[in-house]
Amino acid sequence: MRVFMVLLALLALPCQGLEVAPKHWWVGMQNPDVQLLLHAPNTAQRQWQLRPYDGVKLMRQHHLDFDNYQFLSVHIGAQARPGTLQFVADDGAQFDYQLKARAHDSKQRQGFSSDDVIYLINPDRFANGNVHNDNHPSMIEKVDRQARDGRRGGDLQGITERLDYLKRMGFTQLWLTPARENNMATGSYHGYAMTNLYAIDPRMGGNEAYFDMVAQAAERGIGVIMDMVPNHIGANHPWVADKPSRDWINNGGEFLANNHRRQTVMDPHSSVYDRTRFNDAWFVPAMPDLNQRVDELSTYLIQHSIWWIEQAGLSGIRVDTNSYSDKAFMARWSQAIMAEYPNFSIVGEEWTTNPGIIAYWQRGKHNQDGFSTGINSMMDFPLQAALVKALNEEPGWHTGWVRVYQSLGNDFMYANADDLLVFADNHDMSRIYTQLGQSVNKTKLAMTLMLTIRGIPQVYYGTEVLLDNTPSDAHGDIRIEFPGGFSGHQADAITGQGLSAEQTQMQGYLRTLLQLRKQHSALRQGRMVHFAPKDNVYLYARIDNEQRIVVILNKGGKQHLALAPYTEILQGAKQAKNLLSGEVLRLNQTLAIGAEQAMILALQ
Amino acid sequence: MRVFMVLLALLALPCQGLEVAPKHWWVGMQNPDVQLLLHAPNTAQRQWQLRPYDGVKLMRQHHLDFDNYQFLSVHIGAQARPGTLQFVADDGAQFDYQLKARAHDSKQRQGFSSDDVIYLINPDRFANGNVHNDNHPSMIEKVDRQARDGRRGGDLQGITERLDYLKRMGFTQLWLTPARENNMATGSYHGYAMTNLYAIDPRMGGNEAYFDMVAQAAERGIGVIMDMVPNHIGANHPWVADKPSRDWINNGGEFLANNHRRQTVMDPHSSVYDRTRFNDAWFVPAMPDLNQRVDELSTYLIQHSIWWIEQAGLSGIRVDTNSYSDKAFMARWSQAIMAEYPNFSIVGEEWTTNPGIIAYWQRGKHNQDGFSTGINSMMDFPLQAALVKALNEEPGWHTGWVRVYQSLGNDFMYANADDLLVFADNHDMSRIYTQLGQSVNKTKLAMTLMLTIRGIPQVYYGTEVLLDNTPSDAHGDIRIEFPGGFSGHQADAITGQGLSAEQTQMQGYLRTLLQLRKQHSALRQGRMVHFAPKDNVYLYARIDNEQRIVVILNKGGKQHLALAPYTEILQGAKQAKNLLSGEVLRLNQTLAIGAEQAMILALQ
Repeated sequence: MRVFMVLLALLALPCQGLEVAPKHWWVGMQNPDVQLLLHAPNTAQRQWQLRPYDGVKLMRQHHLDFDNYQFLSVHIGAQARPGTLQFVADDGAQFDYQLKARAHDSKQRQGFSSDDVIYLINPDRFANGNVHNDNHPSMIEKVDRQARDGRRGGDLQGITERLDYLKRMGFTQLWLTPARENNMATGSYHGYAMTNLYAIDPRMGGNEAYFDMVAQAAERGIGVIMDMVPNHIGANHPWVADKPSRDWINNGGEFLANNHRRQTVMDPHSSVYDRTRFNDAWFVPAMPDLNQRVDELSTYLIQHSIWWIEQAGLSGIRVDTNSYSDKAFMARWSQAIMAEYPNFSIVGEEWTTNPGIIAYWQRGKHNQDGFSTGINSMMDFPLQAALVKALNEEPGWHTGWVRVYQSLGNDFMYANADDLLVFADNHDMSRIYTQLGQSVNKTKLAMTLMLTIRGIPQVYYGTEVLLDNTPSDAHGDIRIEFPGGFSGHQADAITGQGLSAEQTQMQGYLRTLLQLRKQHSALRQGRMVHFAPKDNVYLYARIDNEQRIVVILNKGGKQHLALAPYTEILQGAKQAKNLLSGEVLRLNQTLAIGAEQAMILALQ
Repeated sequence: MRVFMVLLALLALPCQGLEVAPKHWWVGMQNPDVQLLLHAPNTAQRQWQLRPYDGVKLMRQHHLDFDNYQFLSVHIGAQARPGTLQFVADDGAQFDYQLKARAHDSKQRQGFSSDDVIYLINPDRFANGNVHNDNHPSMIEKVDRQARDGRRGGDLQGITERLDYLKRMGFTQLWLTPARENNMATGSYHGYAMTNLYAIDPRMGGNEAYFDMVAQAAERGIGVIMDMVPNHIGANHPWVADKPSRDWINNGGEFLANNHRRQTVMDPHSSVYDRTRFNDAWFVPAMPDLNQRVDELSTYLIQHSIWWIEQAGLSGIRVDTNSYSDKAFMARWSQAIMAEYPNFSIVGEEWTTNPGIIAYWQRGKHNQDGFSTGINSMMDFPLQAALVKALNEEPGWHTGWVRVYQSLGNDFMYANADDLLVFADNHDMSRIYTQLGQSVNKTKLAMTLMLTIRGIPQVYYGTEVLLDNTPSDAHGDIRIEFPGGFSGHQADAITGQGLSAEQTQMQGYLRTLLQLRKQHSALRQGRMVHFAPKDNVYLYARIDNEQRIVVILNKGGKQHLALAPYTEILQGAKQAKNLLSGEVLRLNQTLAIGAEQAMILALQ
């Protein structure tokens, strides 16, 4: 029987022009059902049959408003083995569909956690590993290194070649802003206007370069987090000119400016008018907003996410513009992913300084309205804003370090503050060195905090060499070329050639912080005890069964710190090693700390 | 048997100098146990017996560190009838203790709700009904109408005499700042340094004047809310010089300045050091901080609250400095009260603009740490702060009415936003007219908002006649004498004599708002739908099965409002009656609204 089927498969003519998504699937998934979306002129007229295949059934075929798309619902039973499904239509069209075996232990893969440190890269701006793919005949936009928002030619090979550097520094996860096909006329470098959800952009090296990068990273103990955008697509995505259904794209497929009133999602008093103008309106005309209330689209988006996790071997997903998508869909999407991969991690972007809103979106939160999602991690925007204010303003009752102290104090609102992603900056805001007025000391204080508090630290590429976007705050200027990543650079951040003394110092300092975090479980997982800041000093401890680490951040002048208030964490320790300097300090009644200095003390 | 006991009671000599608290108790309470605290020199040496009384048992007698106090635990079974208990000691001392019958339906009494409007009074500053009690031989501080923080002589009779006015205005609840004995050398007018928790200050008229005021208010459909201070007492309270136990008062009975870091209570990272300096430190040296972890003290505080509810016939309690008390105690205290009176209301003071902290303290909130209390209402300080900013600043993305819009949007954090107490000002901050730069129009807009949104409105006495504390923001100046309440006043807010045209106008406007709220169930209980403010206009609807009311607040110049966005609340209504002017308006494409005007429209 199987031999016969293989023969049939060899004899069959592939169906010209038929696109099938997902590109393939697997046996042994948690959810036994998969929806195939067929795309070809008038394909909806066809009646498909599945050639007999043990454990697999074609349950249903249907289409929506338009004939160029058709949905096949396929059930893959527990007994199904890997192989090739053959679908044959009443007009003679046919296509093969691969069912693969899953990678060993795929379901149990570990997501990112507070044991990790994430390095955030804009792939177009990091390093150009292959100059031959800078342009591509089928891609509209070409390289332009002069234009602020032009493509620089960075690609996945450039990243792969720098994995050893990232490993040496101590990073264990990479979050790349989207590398998927963005066949747009302008601004395609940023990647958020996807025109094919199943393809890495050929100018980045295509799917194979992505799979290779993930595999090479895995060999170095580095996981990869994919940036996903369930909210919208690029205006050149085929769905825009040739829709699967009338309601596939929000607002009847027409641009409507978003009001960005994110609170409308949970506000019990919100008018439908405002909420619709948040959830259904568009970011920009170049980014049509998807209507995830269409069940088939919702399934498509869930499946494409699972496809990338399974196929590429991802360790996590970062969700762009999390709250802009339909709320019920976000719950379904994230819960479906977490059902397939219970130890996986998803981090959501919700740009607000209101911790109540951020907490609302995290898995395990007891929301008063009963809403819950599968998203385990959220970006800690309130802490980021607090950090910058803390370092730039004079200390007062509510100001200075008190901002950070109160922001962390709000952890009572979260289901799991240890799973929040903490960051000093990212690709959508001025670089931290810029935000801190180009102060190296303040940048060091910021990074010391980020790498020693609760949560999952994320570092934006180039922070280690003080990349700076002063005085511009345009996105294209923030996403500056990484030194040494492109031709013509004088400096190279990896060899150290051409770096200023300050850049080299910062790079060493950050590497030290990363290594300290790696070496000390208390810094990664310990419980935190903090003290209300006094003037310019913020002091906290990270404590586990192994260690007691005390972090002291002084943003003012030299001080002699009275130790009496800290008895509960000192617990009689007589001395401590300053892990940043190696110096051993006696813990008498006071402790001297220099101006704008940080201390990381291991109590002995 | 009963005749015999009555005879015994008549024969018994009362125990000289013995104080017993509670002063009496009731049969048929939910909790059958009552703890009597005896206070007399060396009373702890005594062995007490209870003369036989059907259904009542003396379960236990004990003392703590010192001999001047003794605790009797008495069980009052369900079959016990009202009467007099007789306690006899081994040294011949004895005392009678009354068990009363409860008032009809006492348990089912209704607390305050969004059907009510609360009038907040500082009794010393409202009206002097009886000049003969201005001073009292046993009370240290005497009347001084010149000193900022001096006593003015206001009393309960002054309030009782003005109940008809308050009823005419439309108020249905009175919250009095504490009227209980404050036998302190200075500042006793504010009442927050209590020296006897079971006595109304004789300068206010004593307990009988209080009971009379509550009864007279009840006849007018007005409830009374008592201000309770479980956190601290006055330094002249007998417990300070003569403690029941060594740990009765926090910090060993010594003053320690409070750090006012209220977030330490729920912050999972808080050091014990900081949390202790919040919960156990003192407000001021004049207010020793109670250690409610002492079980007997905790019980005393619970019982005294229930005693006042039952004895005076209260409709609610306002809890001063809610979070400063021990957290577990606050849960026990509030749950014990709500167990006795399931429909009662307690409103907590938690002065922060962080809605997460306020939500934490409300009954029904699913806190991540599992904490829950019986307090059903909290003061909406975030909304108050938002309101003042909204009216004083230019409109912008996050400013102007958007402050109010976002503050109400945070209702998703609360277990029950309808039970929040909303207010434009109170006795601890500058008067709203002052905060709004003495703008009558802005004050009207503020009060229109307060009386038409969700929640339980509270109005500070004198707001109706534009009382003003410009330029001082000292407490003694905020708590200004109510016009006509004291000798020598030129103006009288009740007769209207001597009021300025603006004062009269404001009084009429507020009365209109109060009447509108009373007449329209939608304004009291309707669901709220609001719209993101545009420039200077905030628009929302209150909707129930009876009515659709639309409120429009314009803090800018005259505008013609496009009605298209509001279809979902207009629902095709062709006209509306402006309840403030009586005018009937046609609802065409636009609606004209004057500069700095409010509209309350009943859709027709």
